Amino acid sequence: MQTIRTAKAMMAWSSAHHREGVTIGIVPTMGALHAGHRALIRAARLSCDAVVVSLFVNPAQFGPKEDFSRYPRKLKADTALCAKEGVDVLFAPPVGEIYPDGFQTTVSTVKLAHRWEGERRPGHFDGVATVVTKLLTLVRPTAAFFGQKDFQQAVLVKRLVEDLNLGARVIVSPTVREADGLALSSRNVFLTPGQRRAATVLFQALKAGRAAIRAGGRSGANIQQVMRKTLVAEPLASLDYLAVCDPDTLEPLAQIRDRAVLLGAIRIGEIRLIDNLLVTC
Amino acid sequence: MQTIRTAKAMMAWSSAHHREGVTIGIVPTMGALHAGHRALIRAARLSCDAVVVSLFVNPAQFGPKEDFSRYPRKLKADTALCAKEGVDVLFAPPVGEIYPDGFQTTVSTVKLAHRWEGERRPGHFDGVATVVTKLLTLVRPTAAFFGQKDFQQAVLVKRLVEDLNLGARVIVSPTVREADGLALSSRNVFLTPGQRRAATVLFQALKAGRAAIRAGGRSGANIQQVMRKTLVAEPLASLDYLAVCDPDTLEPLAQIRDRAVLLGAIRIGEIRLIDNLLVTC
Repeated sequence: MQTIRTAKAMMAWSSAHHREGVTIGIVPTMGALHAGHRALIRAARLSCDAVVVSLFVNPAQFGPKEDFSRYPRKLKADTALCAKEGVDVLFAPPVGEIYPDGFQTTVSTVKLAHRWEGERRPGHFDGVATVVTKLLTLVRPTAAFFGQKDFQQAVLVKRLVEDLNLGARVIVSPTVREADGLALSSRNVFLTPGQRRAATVLFQALKAGRAAIRAGGRSGANIQQVMRKTLVAEPLASLDYLAVCDPDTLEPLAQIRDRAVLLGAIRIGEIRLIDNLLVTC
Repeated sequence: MQTIRTAKAMMAWSSAHHREGVTIGIVPTMGALHAGHRALIRAARLSCDAVVVSLFVNPAQFGPKEDFSRYPRKLKADTALCAKEGVDVLFAPPVGEIYPDGFQTTVSTVKLAHRWEGERRPGHFDGVATVVTKLLTLVRPTAAFFGQKDFQQAVLVKRLVEDLNLGARVIVSPTVREADGLALSSRNVFLTPGQRRAATVLFQALKAGRAAIRAGGRSGANIQQVMRKTLVAEPLASLDYLAVCDPDTLEPLAQIRDRAVLLGAIRIGEIRLIDNLLVTC
C-alpha cells in the first residue's frame, strides 16, 4: 500500500491508472476507522480494480463550536487497517493540500444542505460538498462508497455528483451496528459507560417507528410521536430531531406511501449522535 | 464538425478522445460569435488536438431583470463560423441537459464573486462558476480559452479550476477591438449608431488611465479621477464603475506598484458595457 500526501501526486496516480483502463473505488473518510469503514472498503475492494481510502479531517465541515480539534485521530491504526484490507492508496493530505492559500470556492447543494443536520450545523454540508467534489476531481473514481449512517450526506453526494457530472457511481452501504444496535461512529469513543448504554435509545426509537409503520401506521405525525415516546424515556438523551421523510428529497412526509426514511439525532452529554432507518411499505 | 446536444453524448465523446491520448481545448461561449470568439477558437485550434466550442446561453448567470430572453441567438451563423474554423464539436445543449429536474448545486468563488460585476449583478458569477464547472467536468479539456474582455470572469475561472482541481489550463486571450477601440461584445448589436459612437468613451477612459500610469502616476485615486474625467465628458454614457485593481485579487489599489488592471463598466441607454486594460509599470 502506498500513502499519498499531495494533490499533485494523487492526480498523477489517478491519471496513470486511468490510462490503463483500471476502475477506481474511493472510500472518503475522516479516519478513526471502524468496522463501518471496513465494510465500505470491502465493498470497494470487491467491485473495483484499485481502491483509494482518503483520510482527511475536513475543517470546512466542522462549525466553530464543534469538535474539529478533538475529533479522534488514529493514523497508525488506520494505516494498518487499510493495509490489511488490501487498499492500494491511502490518501492522507495535510489541510494545505486541500485548501491552499487563496482557496475560496464553495460547492453547495442548496436545498438538501439546509435541512436536518444542515439546519443544526450551519455550513456543514457546504464543507462536505466542497471536499467531496475535490476528492472526486483529484481521484476521478469509477465509484465512491458512503455509509448509510450519514443518510443525508449520502443523498447530498448523489445529487452533487449528478449535478456536477462528476462521473462516479455513488454506492451506499448499510449501517454497521454494535450487538445492541448502536450505529458505529468514530465519536462513540467519547461516551462514558453509562452514556454508552443510554445511546442505544436512538436505534430503539427508530425501530419503534419502523414497527408502527409495519403495523399499518401511515401518518408521519403519529410515527414521529411513537419514536419520540421511546426516546424521552431515556433521561440521559436529549432529543434533537426525529423525522419521517421522503428518502430522496428528505422532505417531511405527512402521509407515508411506499417508502420513508426515519431520521434521528440526539445529544448525550456533549456527544451528538445520528442514525436512520429506511422503511419500505 | 459534429454537433452534440446531450450531456451523455458529450461525456462519451470526451472519454473516447481521452482514451486516445488526445488533447482537448474548449471555448465556452453563449453564442452570437464574433471575432473575439474566433480568436479564442484559433488559439485553441493551434494548441490542442481537438476543439470543442460550447454554445449555451446560461440562464443561471442572468439576473431576473437582465437580458436573458433578448440575448442575441444566431445558431446558424455560429455553426458556420465554427465549421469554417475547424472546430471538431459544437456542444449546444438545451437548458434541461445542463440543469435537469431537481438540479440544485451551486459553485461559488466566494470573494471574487461579490465585487465589481458581481456586486452589480447578484448571482451572476455563481451562475458562471457553476456552468464552467459543469462544462469542464463534461468535456474534461486540457485547456479552456477565455477572453480578456471579461477580466473578472477569467480571474474567477482560474481560481475555480485550481480550487476544484478541474485539471485544465486556463488560457486568456487579448480583447479583440473594433478599429475605434470598442471591445467586441455580442451586446454591441443593440447600440444605435449614436450610442455606438459614444460607446468608445469607455476604452478612451481606460487609455487615459493607462497613459497617466505610464507618465508616472501611481495613486489609484488619481488614476481613477483621470479615467472618470474622460468618461463624464460623454453625455450618452452613465458611469457604473472605473477602478484600479490588483490583477489577481481584483482588490482596489491605493498605490500602484508593478501591475494593475483598470476595470470599467458603463451604461449607454439600456446597454451595459464593460472593458479593461492591464498595465505593467
